[in-house]
Amino acid sequence: MSSFRPTPPKSSTVLGANEVEKSSLTLLSGEPTVVTAGVDLFADALTAQAAAVTPVAWQPPVGAEDALARVMADRRRLSANRTALERMLAAGASLVDVRPASEVVGLTAGQFRHAGPPITWERASGPMRGALIGATLFEGLATTAEDATNLLSGGSVEWAPCHSDGGVGPMAGVVSPSMWVFVLRDEAHDRTSWCSLNEGLGKVLRYGAYGPEVIDRLRWMSSVLGPALRAAVREHGPVDVKGIIAQMVQMGDEGHNRNRAGTLMLLRDLMPAMIDAGVASSDVADVARFVGGNDHFFLNLVMPACKLQTAAASGIPGSTVVTTMARNGTDFGIQVSGTGDTWFTGPANTPQGLFLGSYGPDDANPDIGDSAITETAGIGGFAMASAPAIVRFVGGTVPDALRTSREMYGITTGENPAYALPILDFRGAATGIDVTKVVRSGVLPQINTGMAGRVAGVGQVGAGLVTPPMECFTAALDALGEAAPPVA
Amino acid sequence: MSSFRPTPPKSSTVLGANEVEKSSLTLLSGEPTVVTAGVDLFADALTAQAAAVTPVAWQPPVGAEDALARVMADRRRLSANRTALERMLAAGASLVDVRPASEVVGLTAGQFRHAGPPITWERASGPMRGALIGATLFEGLATTAEDATNLLSGGSVEWAPCHSDGGVGPMAGVVSPSMWVFVLRDEAHDRTSWCSLNEGLGKVLRYGAYGPEVIDRLRWMSSVLGPALRAAVREHGPVDVKGIIAQMVQMGDEGHNRNRAGTLMLLRDLMPAMIDAGVASSDVADVARFVGGNDHFFLNLVMPACKLQTAAASGIPGSTVVTTMARNGTDFGIQVSGTGDTWFTGPANTPQGLFLGSYGPDDANPDIGDSAITETAGIGGFAMASAPAIVRFVGGTVPDALRTSREMYGITTGENPAYALPILDFRGAATGIDVTKVVRSGVLPQINTGMAGRVAGVGQVGAGLVTPPMECFTAALDALGEAAPPVA
Repeated sequence: MSSFRPTPPKSSTVLGANEVEKSSLTLLSGEPTVVTAGVDLFADALTAQAAAVTPVAWQPPVGAEDALARVMADRRRLSANRTALERMLAAGASLVDVRPASEVVGLTAGQFRHAGPPITWERASGPMRGALIGATLFEGLATTAEDATNLLSGGSVEWAPCHSDGGVGPMAGVVSPSMWVFVLRDEAHDRTSWCSLNEGLGKVLRYGAYGPEVIDRLRWMSSVLGPALRAAVREHGPVDVKGIIAQMVQMGDEGHNRNRAGTLMLLRDLMPAMIDAGVASSDVADVARFVGGNDHFFLNLVMPACKLQTAAASGIPGSTVVTTMARNGTDFGIQVSGTGDTWFTGPANTPQGLFLGSYGPDDANPDIGDSAITETAGIGGFAMASAPAIVRFVGGTVPDALRTSREMYGITTGENPAYALPILDFRGAATGIDVTKVVRSGVLPQINTGMAGRVAGVGQVGAGLVTPPMECFTAALDALGEAAPPVA
Repeated sequence: MSSFRPTPPKSSTVLGANEVEKSSLTLLSGEPTVVTAGVDLFADALTAQAAAVTPVAWQPPVGAEDALARVMADRRRLSANRTALERMLAAGASLVDVRPASEVVGLTAGQFRHAGPPITWERASGPMRGALIGATLFEGLATTAEDATNLLSGGSVEWAPCHSDGGVGPMAGVVSPSMWVFVLRDEAHDRTSWCSLNEGLGKVLRYGAYGPEVIDRLRWMSSVLGPALRAAVREHGPVDVKGIIAQMVQMGDEGHNRNRAGTLMLLRDLMPAMIDAGVASSDVADVARFVGGNDHFFLNLVMPACKLQTAAASGIPGSTVVTTMARNGTDFGIQVSGTGDTWFTGPANTPQGLFLGSYGPDDANPDIGDSAITETAGIGGFAMASAPAIVRFVGGTVPDALRTSREMYGITTGENPAYALPILDFRGAATGIDVTKVVRSGVLPQINTGMAGRVAGVGQVGAGLVTPPMECFTAALDALGEAAPPVA
């Protein structure tokens, strides 16, 4: 199979099987036309001769063609990718408990987890540093930001990616032993994931803020919110998070930057159970106000649900399906099924979008957070068609949102019927990003994201759209090529 | 102005001002084309001569042309309709209290209110009779259905439309003194509306069921639900129902047959206040389960909010805007701004849609309920574009939903920016049905509705789509024509 194939124009609708059939039936009935692919030179020459020309966007595949040829020739690929998709679609996700990270992740004093691929203090971005400082203060390892910085830069605190323990954290994603986490289970694959509790909006740790109000809120979350949620979940029994996600994508949420319906459904399910569990009335009212006042609360349940889905597809030899996309504010990293836990990284891009208050593009940090696990699982930026209201939060237009969701079918291996997009006539969300399709088409996964301030301590400055750097995918392709059997 | 004007084809997109300008600029630059309007004969003759023809649907206006000419010539019309639209857009709607109907409506023993235009026992449909029987039992006026029937047919109980007291009731809409109602205020026009509390699904009074479980539930609603909601609303302060409706139409609810997001937002707002108000914990949990377990609960707040909106436009001399559409299961009735409280009626159509369990078309009663006030206000069937998931509940397809919402702009006087439809690029919902536009175009308002069983006591059998009978609009036009000043 040749690696040279014209890329469909980016704005084209992906044709269904019936449409393809129809178009081939009519192929010979019209006037002959000239279609040019790629560089304008050919089209220009014909236009100069008054010939009608349909120019088609095209670019050569990015990255090493040798690796692409080798991976495409790998006889394991198709069945491995089919298995990856089947496992992703079969994965369940239920909220089964809420507990401190010390118990769930086994963190001890001076051990943290963070978003994205591994990162050193020296290379850490402002918001990542801010969140690490905040966690150091919260854990009582230091009493001033200066002392915390000395500890962190001096190597007395250790940190590793959330993903290395099967968890996820939004934005900086810093988790310390005393913080509470949601515990989610996929019974189909006997797997557990976890995520921190959402702190709400404004100056919050995950966006790199660490002032006294941030630390006070974290204390309330560990002493009141976490235990109240634990009591409610244990009283209620497993909460079907996958089922709520299926509903929320029918209610204008794409599950990354819009989680309003999901948050409301969680509240509906847990509030009566929290009362039945005997949580003090004033705490129930406070929790209801805190959760109900933050439309993003449910994001921290969508993320581990998506992690369970993609983790189910990991480690299948020959599979070119992406199982992780994550960023630490400096590097963007991906993991691919066929290459297991290996990270392929490139410099994180800076999102483009809308800014809060007087902030502008210069204030934004490069892309950060594990929340791109939602796109890895087929929602978030991939499900924007179902959430047209999101364009008012991240920029863009409604037609952009529809086009983007359609375009993602071109770089994925399948569709997830559990996450049906009503406006696309209930078509399942594009699922299972395929490294080979990304590299061959040049189309990058579309990510919907929040934007952290570049400077430690600032917090959120906006929300917008971003893509991974292509080099993550070309590096992954090289590794897949090396792992592929020699071409006969 | 002539009353003969081609109807735009039903599937056409309504052009915005810019588009119209653009199309007139390019009008003379192309090849001449033939457009035929109405009967196929003209198009067929040209097609037979190998001419390219664009046929356009057209039909003569229905109803008396004299009345139409007279109403169209009424110089008050344009400014009256502009005033009607302005008042509708300015109307607010806040939930300010929850109280028994005896206090709010002033009902005394043996007085009921019901949905739709006035109806006698002899002409009342099965579900209307069933609901009246249930209310008679609930009020203790009778102890058996047979005794209740005797009372009702014997004239010892009196009933009148909810609309006659500025209120609304879903389906049969029967309200008796001991039932509690939501009280909504429009401060902009110093007006109050009310609606019964939603009973939930299955065998319920509003669908004509009156078994012991129906009566028991009504007792719990009056003794627990109503007082708990009253305590919460008084603790919380006015709940901005108009604001919640604006949000729900961005969350896949059209506010008539889908009220899931609205119900969840109400729960979010009232639960903490209910706890703070000191309502017993077990009652709070029961209320949270009852409301959270019924996605339609918020309909009974959307309806009086819509009533406040349309009532604000009533009684403007010369205005041809529809202010009420309501049905009693036998007759469909409308009220029009320029003719005040006069009902114009015709026989109610039977909805077409999807059925519950083993029910089918033969089990469905003709159209019933005041809930078409949502369409009168520009949402419900008019906002289906924003609620594509609704097609799985009422039948139809997603493209149908989009087309229907677009088509409604052709029979309305304006758009409501407060109710923006994201998928139509945030265009405001089509608002202010204009009798003259309905009669001239032949396009009837699209209503999304529940279906009651034809037989008293059965309850809900399905949900679907229906239109009013055209004769309501032609009768209204005749009355408007009589009220119009003589043409000079």
